[in-house]
Amino acid sequence: MAIRGRRPAGGENTRDAILSATREIVAQTGASGASVRAIAARAGVDPALIYHYFPTKAALVQAALTPPVDVAGLLDGVGSEPEDAGTEVVGRVLRLIDADPVLRDTVVALMRAALSDEDAASALRAALARSVLTALRGIVAPDRPELRATLVGSQLIGLLLARYVIRVPPLSELGPDELVVTVGPTIQRYLTGTLAPGEWAGPTRLEPGPARR
Amino acid sequence: MAIRGRRPAGGENTRDAILSATREIVAQTGASGASVRAIAARAGVDPALIYHYFPTKAALVQAALTPPVDVAGLLDGVGSEPEDAGTEVVGRVLRLIDADPVLRDTVVALMRAALSDEDAASALRAALARSVLTALRGIVAPDRPELRATLVGSQLIGLLLARYVIRVPPLSELGPDELVVTVGPTIQRYLTGTLAPGEWAGPTRLEPGPARR
Repeated sequence: MAIRGRRPAGGENTRDAILSATREIVAQTGASGASVRAIAARAGVDPALIYHYFPTKAALVQAALTPPVDVAGLLDGVGSEPEDAGTEVVGRVLRLIDADPVLRDTVVALMRAALSDEDAASALRAALARSVLTALRGIVAPDRPELRATLVGSQLIGLLLARYVIRVPPLSELGPDELVVTVGPTIQRYLTGTLAPGEWAGPTRLEPGPARR
Repeated sequence: MAIRGRRPAGGENTRDAILSATREIVAQTGASGASVRAIAARAGVDPALIYHYFPTKAALVQAALTPPVDVAGLLDGVGSEPEDAGTEVVGRVLRLIDADPVLRDTVVALMRAALSDEDAASALRAALARSVLTALRGIVAPDRPELRATLVGSQLIGLLLARYVIRVPPLSELGPDELVVTVGPTIQRYLTGTLAPGEWAGPTRLEPGPARR
């Protein structure tokens, strides 16, 4: 008997199928509305098999909502030219997502799911703390690194939402190059610029050495 | 017989009860999953009464997702001192939401709902085009006003998400004053600064007269 959505069971394929089904269901119903039974049916596996891979539903949701890219790898080498770090971060993120329709759909589903309810927000918070903030920690200036990293995150998540989820023109229509030029300086200032009042209007020159680590 | 959630029916109270119930249901299930029957039950009214106020479910969802503040009024007078416009925008938005727990909950529900599915994203896109972008249009510099306004929106929506929905520290914990100081310059540059490449690192001085309207 053919079961819709059934995928071959076994090893990595099964784990990936479960994670993929979880993302699809969570994107539709939010994390709290996603049942292990519905996820198992979508993945074409027995519900008991899910607990073979993931001890709890919360662990499954958290694994499914972890960004499907190696954030540290994506940002590898950013910061070796400190004055280009802002444009590098924006450019690498946008070009990666723009070039891969499947990744783009996954990012949209992840953002929709992660913002839809409290369980998912917790998972996203944990994923952000682990991957994005850790990856940025080597790039941001040493004064107030958490504030800088979360400011970067706030602009990036807002840009991704406007471009890929809400799709507001012209942010949804411009090529990456134009957005890199306009948003890069924002990221640059958050990474290494002066955050104190009254000083931002001047040039945000980077100080080599002590301002980096 | 007491019906849970029943509210007095009649005039503005009924309409408000229907809108409030719609926001609650949409925040839980997304716009596409919200049925008129469930909304009616939550509001304590007959389903037929909903169509007395709103011709279609789409019109109801759009009305419910329209931001519950007068955005143009909130930004009234911003731009009379052009060099303070960025900090004024950030400060007024954050102080308004921080000061009103009911408004804060509504904003979180609206953002969750509006990001949860495609119907809701369309409603948010329409609301943004109508209110936020229109309100900003008198403040932004005349070159590329749509790009400037949507960049402002991208940073603000990212900041509100990080602070109120995902609640990432330190963005969720700092007082408005500290955030105004750090995010205000970003908004200022998007509103009136130079968007062209290579020029951002210099002072983003405002040019009076021709750069304003």
